[in-house]
Amino acid sequence: MTERKFCLSVRAVLMDTQGRCLLVRRSTANRRMAGQWEWPGGGVDDGEDFMAALHREMMEETGLRIEVIGFAGATDFVIADDGLHAIVLCMDVVQTGGALTLSPEHDAAAWVALPELSRYPLAEQVRGFMLNYAAQRQNL
Amino acid sequence: MTERKFCLSVRAVLMDTQGRCLLVRRSTANRRMAGQWEWPGGGVDDGEDFMAALHREMMEETGLRIEVIGFAGATDFVIADDGLHAIVLCMDVVQTGGALTLSPEHDAAAWVALPELSRYPLAEQVRGFMLNYAAQRQNL
Repeated sequence: MTERKFCLSVRAVLMDTQGRCLLVRRSTANRRMAGQWEWPGGGVDDGEDFMAALHREMMEETGLRIEVIGFAGATDFVIADDGLHAIVLCMDVVQTGGALTLSPEHDAAAWVALPELSRYPLAEQVRGFMLNYAAQRQNL
Repeated sequence: MTERKFCLSVRAVLMDTQGRCLLVRRSTANRRMAGQWEWPGGGVDDGEDFMAALHREMMEETGLRIEVIGFAGATDFVIADDGLHAIVLCMDVVQTGGALTLSPEHDAAAWVALPELSRYPLAEQVRGFMLNYAAQRQNL
């Protein structure tokens, strides 16, 4: 039997000092889910450390330098059209430098208070996870 | 500010055909938590793919070949004495070959039905996560 292919990605829950997290909107440069909002991040490359991947993706997608301060949780989904099974690690981060600049992968950014997350069309495969995170964090 | 050091590890929830999972007991060769039971697995090495790490650790610690069939969840803890923050990915796996043979890291193995997990002194930092997994899986 051929083992299903698993891949690892890592995303940043970047909170500002007012308790809002950074969302970015997938552009039509994406084959899937254009117009949907997500936390920035992306795939861990072959041989790459998962933390290095997060710093790299944040710089590429947002132009921001970050410090990772904690673990936000993990979720998974199957990418239907290529059978990949994605494991998504989400890390709590804060900004330490840089200025917000989007890559072609995204066409909008927003700082969103956690209770407002549900108003955004979130990336469908992680929507439930994101809303659950927001609900838990509000209860802290 | 120096970023806290995060490390990634991966563990296997290996179920047999009777719905029991494999637990291994940490030997006194371990600096910490000797005598406590855990799912087999270990740290992802620098530059190593997380799935390759799981297959390697399973072979080293149990002598078993596995196939990964799903994502069991993730948890995290801080290793108090060295400040490392460990992220633990747990994968659902089945055995495809090999014969159970322990490494010096463990001195006992047991196949344990999920409702019986709580009777074992589980590794303290992942005990809550393991019991929660068992409870959720029993409710499926």
